[in-house]
Amino acid sequence: MRTYPEQLYPAQRLERVRAAVGAAGLDAVLLTPGPDLRYVTGYDAKQLERLTCLVIPAAGEPALFLPRLELAAARAAITTDLEMVATGETDDAFALVADRLGAIDSVGLSDRMWALFVLRFRDALPGARQALAATVLRELRMRKSPAEVAELREAGAAIDRVHAQVPGWLKPGLNERAVASRIAEAILAEGHAHVDFVIVGSGPNAASPHHEVSDRVLEEGDVVVVDIGGTMPSGYCSDCTRTYCIGAPPAEFTAYYEVLRDAQEAACRSVRPGVTAESVDAAARSRIEAAGYGEAFFHRTGHGIGLETHEDPYIVAGNDLVLEPGMAFSVEPGIYPGAHGARIEDIVVCTEDGAERLNNAPRELAVV
Amino acid sequence: MRTYPEQLYPAQRLERVRAAVGAAGLDAVLLTPGPDLRYVTGYDAKQLERLTCLVIPAAGEPALFLPRLELAAARAAITTDLEMVATGETDDAFALVADRLGAIDSVGLSDRMWALFVLRFRDALPGARQALAATVLRELRMRKSPAEVAELREAGAAIDRVHAQVPGWLKPGLNERAVASRIAEAILAEGHAHVDFVIVGSGPNAASPHHEVSDRVLEEGDVVVVDIGGTMPSGYCSDCTRTYCIGAPPAEFTAYYEVLRDAQEAACRSVRPGVTAESVDAAARSRIEAAGYGEAFFHRTGHGIGLETHEDPYIVAGNDLVLEPGMAFSVEPGIYPGAHGARIEDIVVCTEDGAERLNNAPRELAVV
Repeated sequence: MRTYPEQLYPAQRLERVRAAVGAAGLDAVLLTPGPDLRYVTGYDAKQLERLTCLVIPAAGEPALFLPRLELAAARAAITTDLEMVATGETDDAFALVADRLGAIDSVGLSDRMWALFVLRFRDALPGARQALAATVLRELRMRKSPAEVAELREAGAAIDRVHAQVPGWLKPGLNERAVASRIAEAILAEGHAHVDFVIVGSGPNAASPHHEVSDRVLEEGDVVVVDIGGTMPSGYCSDCTRTYCIGAPPAEFTAYYEVLRDAQEAACRSVRPGVTAESVDAAARSRIEAAGYGEAFFHRTGHGIGLETHEDPYIVAGNDLVLEPGMAFSVEPGIYPGAHGARIEDIVVCTEDGAERLNNAPRELAVV
Repeated sequence: MRTYPEQLYPAQRLERVRAAVGAAGLDAVLLTPGPDLRYVTGYDAKQLERLTCLVIPAAGEPALFLPRLELAAARAAITTDLEMVATGETDDAFALVADRLGAIDSVGLSDRMWALFVLRFRDALPGARQALAATVLRELRMRKSPAEVAELREAGAAIDRVHAQVPGWLKPGLNERAVASRIAEAILAEGHAHVDFVIVGSGPNAASPHHEVSDRVLEEGDVVVVDIGGTMPSGYCSDCTRTYCIGAPPAEFTAYYEVLRDAQEAACRSVRPGVTAESVDAAARSRIEAAGYGEAFFHRTGHGIGLETHEDPYIVAGNDLVLEPGMAFSVEPGIYPGAHGARIEDIVVCTEDGAERLNNAPRELAVV
């Protein structure tokens, strides 16, 4: 039986955040547009130079401060009862937020708040020590509800449908950019609201994990790392990597690809409630090191995923966070000897029974 | 004769910024991914939880701190000589930046730096008062070089080509979302690298300036505000609004549309070196107020544009900035009585001779 944290609807989320603000020793949190605000209210506000900010005091009623121009969009997006304070073009929105909060000692800011706003709030609330709202939000966002897992599952299925089409596009003579363009179209066609990234790394580019695309033309014998993702209309993200070979792969490749596959399997199998994030990293890394490829695996094993492609929990050495049901993250070891490279990535969610994989495209060496 | 500030190439830009850092009373600026970093280096870095940061001290050599994973991409993007310091997954990149800077009293941060990083730098550089790097960058970015104006001109022509196709899509029976989808495809097809926004506001939605799209089905007699923009491969942005009528417009509409057109013309004509930003706002606003529609024009007249859709200079009451050749911004008054509304927007650049308009789609009442 799979169990996840109880379902939270936005109205409950706001209440839950408010309760957590005081418990975290903060007097208020300030959430500007981004995943924190979307998580709490459902409102996918645009990040603009005009201030939009959800003010959640530990004591007192929350309110959304926003430009008058955005009022209609906010009302359409936020179905729960929430006070909105509309500001005009020449109002000092920071002073209005400060007035609302009164004298406070500490305030939590959303991770992605722009420095432009951080410093204005520092000056408008000179007595308030600034901290990150993530101390509150991370704890909630990291533990996905069944509805959130369902959204991630749908995102995973959508990106799997894209990977199913990739072999047909990996033809000698096409360049990486042309392949990426077809992939981007497919990411949208398979149900994403937008494309977040398309990495097509062929030949030596396969050995650069964050290579995106180039004009390099695909050749017979190339290894091609394809790491792709997008955001669904729900706001939840997909992210999946497969490595393909155009014709017979280089001799060394076949050997280390099997090491990688075994390491990725081992890391996925190690996922269960009670183990640490770093132990999942170690499960992959120890196998790759034992096979002599430790130096060629120079990034962490994974990152959390949800309303952001990269969020907590990070699957990295030094992170002793204990996994719980509902935590969702990538398991994506890679081996990059230099002339070529490989990575296999699935999104998994921790359940009472271990990892549920949300990506299921084949992981066997795919010769196209 | 049109004159613009001298051409600056990225290598000169870095040198120019460095000189301005000390002049602004700062010991260093820290630029994380975003338009400031792209302006200075040409590097369109991704904003990630791993720190990428260009450190520009007033005294001493600049250096780009970045994750080892991003090194290949950065080397491909940055053609000038710039020291790069690659960090590993478990390094404390903030401490490394602090070590590089030593004891400093003040530091400027890029406007869009995430709070996540602002607070880490606050703690890593406890003696340094944080200010905005915009005091330095704004002055440079606001004054476009001829090459930058040429990029904006190309962006303007691209979005004009999209507007030329819009009348063909405004058919009764289609909903706003379907029209927006065709516009989004055309924004890409006409040369943009990505779509930034597509506003299709029909009927009463035309009266909500930041309405995006809805399922509302277009009807005979609708007024439709179409405000669209994207980013070109160069990084420079387009932004243009036209208002269309499907068949005969409402009686009141024709009257206030002429007021709007006159106001937009007057504001464009008022642009020249030596006048203030707020005087351009006043040129539009005074005409709309005189015609009795002052209450129905409740946003500023415009915003600067360049590597961001919205940047300095803002064309708004209270901004006494004196315009200079090379400043580029929107002139976009609107009148929104409620049942419908209208807006006309062009990007203009200030030259010695007055405004050069970068959008040239017809502004006459377009009955489709």
